[in-house]
Amino acid sequence: MANMYDHAYDLEKAIRNSEEFTGLKDAYEAVMGDEEAKKMFEDFRQTQMTLQQKQMQGEEISEEEVEQARQVVEVVQQHPQISKLMEEEQRLNTVINDISKIITKPLEDLYGEPEEPQQ
Amino acid sequence: MANMYDHAYDLEKAIRNSEEFTGLKDAYEAVMGDEEAKKMFEDFRQTQMTLQQKQMQGEEISEEEVEQARQVVEVVQQHPQISKLMEEEQRLNTVINDISKIITKPLEDLYGEPEEPQQ
Ligand SMILES: [Ca+2]
Ligand SMILES: [Ca+2]
Repeated sequence: MANMYDHAYDLEKAIRNSEEFTGLKDAYEAVMGDEEAKKMFEDFRQTQMTLQQKQMQGEEISEEEVEQARQVVEVVQQHPQISKLMEEEQRLNTVINDISKIITKPLEDLYGEPEEPQQ
Repeated sequence: MANMYDHAYDLEKAIRNSEEFTGLKDAYEAVMGDEEAKKMFEDFRQTQMTLQQKQMQGEEISEEEVEQARQVVEVVQQHPQISKLMEEEQRLNTVINDISKIITKPLEDLYGEPEEPQQ
């Protein structure tokens, strides 16, 4: 029987060649190839990460920050290339979560607790 | 070409049949089958989780708590079955981290940043 690493490399290849990954790649490159979209997307990511970090560290998030984040999301969702990218990210994310659940199943069976799903 | 899920299930089977996983399973069952060892191990896990949670939430960890945790670690490390279990967990953990790096490589290549290794 092939070992774990062989199977992991096969899986990596299957991910790389999947519609889900190539779709994400195309969408990502479309955004990165457009200066305006790129900047908008990077601002959005930065806002998200800052809020997430604060949340994880139990810091207070002001109403103003929440409102600002909401507006940033609204703007990027109306940008066709960025909203396409976010859709594709969500799609691959679902697949990666599924895969992660499948391969951590032996540990889950052993320890009897489901692993925290990755976002 | 087989799809991602087929490869994920093959990988899951390979993990389940690996020496690393069966070694962990044996060590885990040895500890769980011994009331004293089981309680000691569960106390240890509880202490670890409490401290990790505090750390993640940016809460202060007192010198007393650090000292108490150090003592718990010392005690469990001297217990042959528990220290064996911790070794086996570390061993499988390394494999799972490697596998996780392999299968997230397409995303890493795309986004240009290494994913945070899972502990
Ligand atoms: Ca444009
Ligand atoms: Ca005993």
